[in-house]
Amino acid sequence: MVTSDDLLKRFAEGNRSALSKIITLVENHESTFPEVLDRLYHRTGRAYRIGITGPPGAGKSTLVSTLVKRIRGEDKLVGVIAVDPSSPFTGGALLGDRIRMQDIGVDPGVFVRSMATRGSLGGLAEAAGDVADVMDAFGKDVIITETVGVGQCELDVAGACYTTVVVIVPESGDSVQAMKAGLMEIADVLVVNKSDREGADRMARQVRAVMELGGERNGWNPPVVCTIASEGEGIEELYGHIEQHRNFLSRSGGLEKHRRGNVEVTIRALVENDLHRRIWTDRSLDRLHTLVGEVCGGDKTPRQASGEILKMIEGR
Amino acid sequence: MVTSDDLLKRFAEGNRSALSKIITLVENHESTFPEVLDRLYHRTGRAYRIGITGPPGAGKSTLVSTLVKRIRGEDKLVGVIAVDPSSPFTGGALLGDRIRMQDIGVDPGVFVRSMATRGSLGGLAEAAGDVADVMDAFGKDVIITETVGVGQCELDVAGACYTTVVVIVPESGDSVQAMKAGLMEIADVLVVNKSDREGADRMARQVRAVMELGGERNGWNPPVVCTIASEGEGIEELYGHIEQHRNFLSRSGGLEKHRRGNVEVTIRALVENDLHRRIWTDRSLDRLHTLVGEVCGGDKTPRQASGEILKMIEGR
Repeated sequence: MVTSDDLLKRFAEGNRSALSKIITLVENHESTFPEVLDRLYHRTGRAYRIGITGPPGAGKSTLVSTLVKRIRGEDKLVGVIAVDPSSPFTGGALLGDRIRMQDIGVDPGVFVRSMATRGSLGGLAEAAGDVADVMDAFGKDVIITETVGVGQCELDVAGACYTTVVVIVPESGDSVQAMKAGLMEIADVLVVNKSDREGADRMARQVRAVMELGGERNGWNPPVVCTIASEGEGIEELYGHIEQHRNFLSRSGGLEKHRRGNVEVTIRALVENDLHRRIWTDRSLDRLHTLVGEVCGGDKTPRQASGEILKMIEGR
Repeated sequence: MVTSDDLLKRFAEGNRSALSKIITLVENHESTFPEVLDRLYHRTGRAYRIGITGPPGAGKSTLVSTLVKRIRGEDKLVGVIAVDPSSPFTGGALLGDRIRMQDIGVDPGVFVRSMATRGSLGGLAEAAGDVADVMDAFGKDVIITETVGVGQCELDVAGACYTTVVVIVPESGDSVQAMKAGLMEIADVLVVNKSDREGADRMARQVRAVMELGGERNGWNPPVVCTIASEGEGIEELYGHIEQHRNFLSRSGGLEKHRRGNVEVTIRALVENDLHRRIWTDRSLDRLHTLVGEVCGGDKTPRQASGEILKMIEGR
């Protein structure tokens, strides 16, 4: 068996397979994961974290690939975390897409990891944050997290990044709906991708108007960029806006605020998860199952049942 | 001010405005909501709960409207909860859609309520469950919850229903992606809507094949139905399958199991929410903020910080 010492030593030496093993260990919550995370934590805090989110079919993965190549042009090391079930990174796409992805997959300066959106132990947002910490500690300069922008958990993942890029396409009402679902409020940069399609100009104008209506947010006006990710068009401009937002955050103290916010969320989650583990013992679960029967039988309400469990926990 | 007594009295008399007020009170977690929910709980347990889910643009709302009309044909009372941000019920659609919705909106036997997907106090799944309980207690025979099938929270909402209908359309790769995101596993009935579109037959065949590969689940083989919801086509067949699934659940004890599962989830959430409220006092929040500074300064890891808070809570 490989000990944590060995693994962490190889990790510190920049061994890719050690990185991969530690991510797996953290994602699966293996017994040593708290210790391992703790021991590499002092190396974190250097990487810039970018979130890319938007509805399925918006071309997020192609955009991520192209953006990664642009960032690699500056010789920066990049980590990619894909938590979008429709992403080719997670195996959810057509063969053509996957072949395109291989471009960045073979670059030793890029590490791609996909995460399941379901059945993960603990919350998805927490797990994605832990994996980002591991990549950060490994020495990645930029970490890009791709999520599908529907659902609170996915929005939380994007929200933990310093710059959030929301990608939409000029198509039917879907994008507008997606924006209504809360994407608008979290966008630091808005991308209208596949902008060679009909209606792209109109959509970009509309989106700009809506963003302006929303006004600046703590001094930042989210720009709207038109791209054709598959042809690399607009990527330079997009990267420029991301860099501007990064500089803006550094200057305004927003980066520090963001980091503090993430740390607070992490500590809170650790406290609450630990308490949940302690609350649900064999004894309280037994009581819970009895109470479920009583509630179904009409003898009690769920609130009365929870009151009894709380009393039992307090009295232990 | 209206007291809970007045409100509950009018609610018990079948007053629609009392129903509406109680739902608002429950959704906003107003101070009296636990008492009100508790006092109407004994009336719950009669309504049959159907979940309709699927990607944006699948035509879920039109399907819901048509299905509601079919169910109303049997003079059953229907409640609709829309937690899909792209649903016309929630105001997220084009004018044409909204006018179509009015058909069912003016029927006094139908009560439609839309819920925001973000910013709700407490979890969305819990709030949707509470609102369903209120409609159930009001005397609705059938409650239909419409959610957009991406994201864990939305899947949880659908999962709390007895029969889950997953709606997809014969279009691009989106539906297949959506299915990969976990929709496949939760479908009791699968609908290929807009089946007059090209590729519908092929998609229905593919989906059937995949469903058969998945095999039966506890003795139920999820059927695949082709519909054109806007023209009412296939709705009779869909309703037939829902009724068959309902009968299957009744016979096999699955309904009872489902109810117990829902009650268990509700009690667990009540216990955990209550503990969270008690844990995060002014004192522990003060400590948390100090610790956040120490972690950001590199003096501690998040896990060490959470350990200190846990020790403090235990020692109170």
